[in-house]
Amino acid sequence: MEKEIISWIYEAAERVKAGLGDALKVDQKSGRTDLVTNVDKETQAFIVSKITAFDPAAKILGEENGQDQTPIDQGRVFVIDPIDGTLNFVMQRENFCIMIAVYENGVGQLGFIYDVIRDELFWGGPKVGKVFYNNEELSPPENRSLGEGLIGMNLALYRKNINHAQEIGNQTMGVRVLGCAGLDLIAILKGTQIGYISMLSPWDYAAGSIMMKQLGLPFSGAEGQPLSFQGREFFIGATSAVMNQIQAFDKEKH
Amino acid sequence: MEKEIISWIYEAAERVKAGLGDALKVDQKSGRTDLVTNVDKETQAFIVSKITAFDPAAKILGEENGQDQTPIDQGRVFVIDPIDGTLNFVMQRENFCIMIAVYENGVGQLGFIYDVIRDELFWGGPKVGKVFYNNEELSPPENRSLGEGLIGMNLALYRKNINHAQEIGNQTMGVRVLGCAGLDLIAILKGTQIGYISMLSPWDYAAGSIMMKQLGLPFSGAEGQPLSFQGREFFIGATSAVMNQIQAFDKEKH
Repeated sequence: MEKEIISWIYEAAERVKAGLGDALKVDQKSGRTDLVTNVDKETQAFIVSKITAFDPAAKILGEENGQDQTPIDQGRVFVIDPIDGTLNFVMQRENFCIMIAVYENGVGQLGFIYDVIRDELFWGGPKVGKVFYNNEELSPPENRSLGEGLIGMNLALYRKNINHAQEIGNQTMGVRVLGCAGLDLIAILKGTQIGYISMLSPWDYAAGSIMMKQLGLPFSGAEGQPLSFQGREFFIGATSAVMNQIQAFDKEKH
Repeated sequence: MEKEIISWIYEAAERVKAGLGDALKVDQKSGRTDLVTNVDKETQAFIVSKITAFDPAAKILGEENGQDQTPIDQGRVFVIDPIDGTLNFVMQRENFCIMIAVYENGVGQLGFIYDVIRDELFWGGPKVGKVFYNNEELSPPENRSLGEGLIGMNLALYRKNINHAQEIGNQTMGVRVLGCAGLDLIAILKGTQIGYISMLSPWDYAAGSIMMKQLGLPFSGAEGQPLSFQGREFFIGATSAVMNQIQAFDKEKH
């Protein structure tokens, strides 16, 4: 299955790149800064057509095209974000990803994050027992603590200091705001960030969380609980050391 | 002169890349998150040696090696940031720049920002009457307003809401925190960001401000005043439309 998914991602990426020079058709969704383009919709439709041909019984949980309410735990579910970082895609034409995850009865089996412009594919999970960066197997990153690295955050969450985000950020080497969950999650896999704290939808974290867990990196809600995959949720993905520090810190402050 | 400077930058970058696989010698400067590495110091020393051979009378204003107090307005001054984004350099091994600017009696003549890992060189200014992205002449970016683009900010400034940073951020499409002034300033030149608001030292903004002005993009202190090039200062670099909106906004709130 993983070979097929990788071929869909590369084919989808070629279509996305071919459309980068064209005028995008941009629409608003929930508000002024929540955008969707014709490329998001077409890319999801393209990936869904490949999935349907490959496995007609599979279900789809995806950001676009009204497929955002599928339960995660019934049979085989493909979780799709056709363009993660749509604002970056529209404004920068870079710093966006294509993401696909495969769940079987609620258990993550495979995750794929493709940074289209940098041509960096991260993929793996329990189904293959490994995580790969392009063709190279990834080792778990160093188990660094808060004071030893950079952390990614959602800016609204940081501004409102939800779950002590500002105090946590102050203990790190620095906070980065990239506008693309996929980039933050692959930064953790690569070891260039010690964590990512955000509040997002299932298709934003599904693929990354599967790969993180495969490398022994914790990914959960604020209290360590698993995510529901229904609607936007607060989550933390981090090294074990950072997760322990954040949870101890939260208890101390409550 | 520009040909020589470009050759120094490419040679310095080769040395930096050659050192990326090695263990860095990292020291703290003003605090826990203000780092300097052997590569910063060696790169500045290398560039200074080239400048001194080229123009023995030229003065140096640079981040490292105790050369950070030189006045900007006396003769020819080279302003150097050997590694802009040292934290990114240490933690990510990417997302950092080499920056050089040339001032003649206080007037910016040439600026150079080199994104080493992406191999993207931005350079130009009054001395050549143009700005180049690698070998291609850059046109001024579209004059977009606050609501039409992404803005870069320093996170501490954002957290403390200095000069209404949060309200300004809320009017944009989104705020990005990259940890490297050079990347924010070239994003404005490219048109992928509408502005950058920060509080930094002369070597962080000298090269970018020269290129921005060459393309008709305003760069100034909060009230529109020129910067002093002495110590850390608040500044705004933006499209004309955004600069007008921010200054009107500031007056309204005072």
